Amino acid sequence: MQKIAIIVAGGSGKRMGTETPKQFLHIAGKPILLHTFMQFAAVSDVEIVVVLPQEHISLWQTIINQFKVDIKHQVIAGGAERFYSVKNAIGSLMIENEALIAIHDGVRPFASKALIERCFKIAATYGNCVPAIALKDSLRKIDGEKSMIVNRDKYKLVQTPQVFKFTHLNAAYNQAFNTAFTDDASVLEAQKETIHLTEGEDINIKITSPSDLVFAEAILHAF
Amino acid sequence: MQKIAIIVAGGSGKRMGTETPKQFLHIAGKPILLHTFMQFAAVSDVEIVVVLPQEHISLWQTIINQFKVDIKHQVIAGGAERFYSVKNAIGSLMIENEALIAIHDGVRPFASKALIERCFKIAATYGNCVPAIALKDSLRKIDGEKSMIVNRDKYKLVQTPQVFKFTHLNAAYNQAFNTAFTDDASVLEAQKETIHLTEGEDINIKITSPSDLVFAEAILHAF
Repeated sequence: MQKIAIIVAGGSGKRMGTETPKQFLHIAGKPILLHTFMQFAAVSDVEIVVVLPQEHISLWQTIINQFKVDIKHQVIAGGAERFYSVKNAIGSLMIENEALIAIHDGVRPFASKALIERCFKIAATYGNCVPAIALKDSLRKIDGEKSMIVNRDKYKLVQTPQVFKFTHLNAAYNQAFNTAFTDDASVLEAQKETIHLTEGEDINIKITSPSDLVFAEAILHAF
Repeated sequence: MQKIAIIVAGGSGKRMGTETPKQFLHIAGKPILLHTFMQFAAVSDVEIVVVLPQEHISLWQTIINQFKVDIKHQVIAGGAERFYSVKNAIGSLMIENEALIAIHDGVRPFASKALIERCFKIAATYGNCVPAIALKDSLRKIDGEKSMIVNRDKYKLVQTPQVFKFTHLNAAYNQAFNTAFTDDASVLEAQKETIHLTEGEDINIKITSPSDLVFAEAILHAF
């Protein structure tokens, strides 16, 4: 069965406060996106696709050359929103109907090989698989100026890779864009797909702020 | 105005998988609880109270001697639940009616002096103040075997210190214990108090898992 990993790296450096888009910032001497890429390269029989803003494609190719990365993959230009980046990718690839597609944040470089493999395996059975973890902090729901405690045991924080059967993914990405789509599970769910969760990983963090960069260096040195 | 900080350190090592309760694990050569304690010691005019399980009080005193900590504070034996620990503390202290009480997790060692001072200041005006931060990951609500996306912009992750006017806190802790009380804000809220949020801090993490220990070491070295 064909397995594809689409690594979406469309972010800017806005929240990071840097000129360099965050996926190109270095941890342990290598760009974050390259760390992410290598996690998927370690999984057997997965075709890797990197989706980047048009203006960053040449930078990625420079990185590939500089770090002597000899792993075949495709590079596709993304859109203005993550939704359009994924849509572009699935629209421009040769994909079998039975294929499983993993979609992963370019700035989430620590998803383990075991987690990636598990998500593919569960998606093969259930049609999709999304990793999620419990909340450690109390959670409050905001309602205008007010807020109220909610039961944190009834909520989970969602990670990637999120794996879907291609036919389901493709059908879902034919709907119109909605700002409520903060991940791919929400796109599929808007088409009545029931999402199947699996346990994520504490260290599978998304690097979006300067403190995350510090955490990322620490993870690389410790694990 | 009297200002008191109650540092609640009742945890066991269960989630950490260690024999040593997590508040006594070391980061950068010092117990986590001592790091937490020193953050409050840096704030002017705050009386510090440490609440510990009875069986750990002598260990804390050993630490105080070993690290030559010469900061006056009180130590109080806690209860079986965090709720009872706080209740014991406020029941056994001499507190003025106008006092402000900060309640803080013993395993949250990076609350900045600025955050602690801001929480006291806001609570002086609004009766309470609770720090909270936005979610970076998508959030799903769990409903039995199913789950659904919710708008993460409508939720916040709650931190400590949580500061309250003593009279409000004392009244709230006269109600019966409820397992829904995951923090002090939820205890006060059950008595119809409106909770006032302020922006928390990314690095103000609660150390509950082995990966948090790695993050904590990194924070200490970077900031």
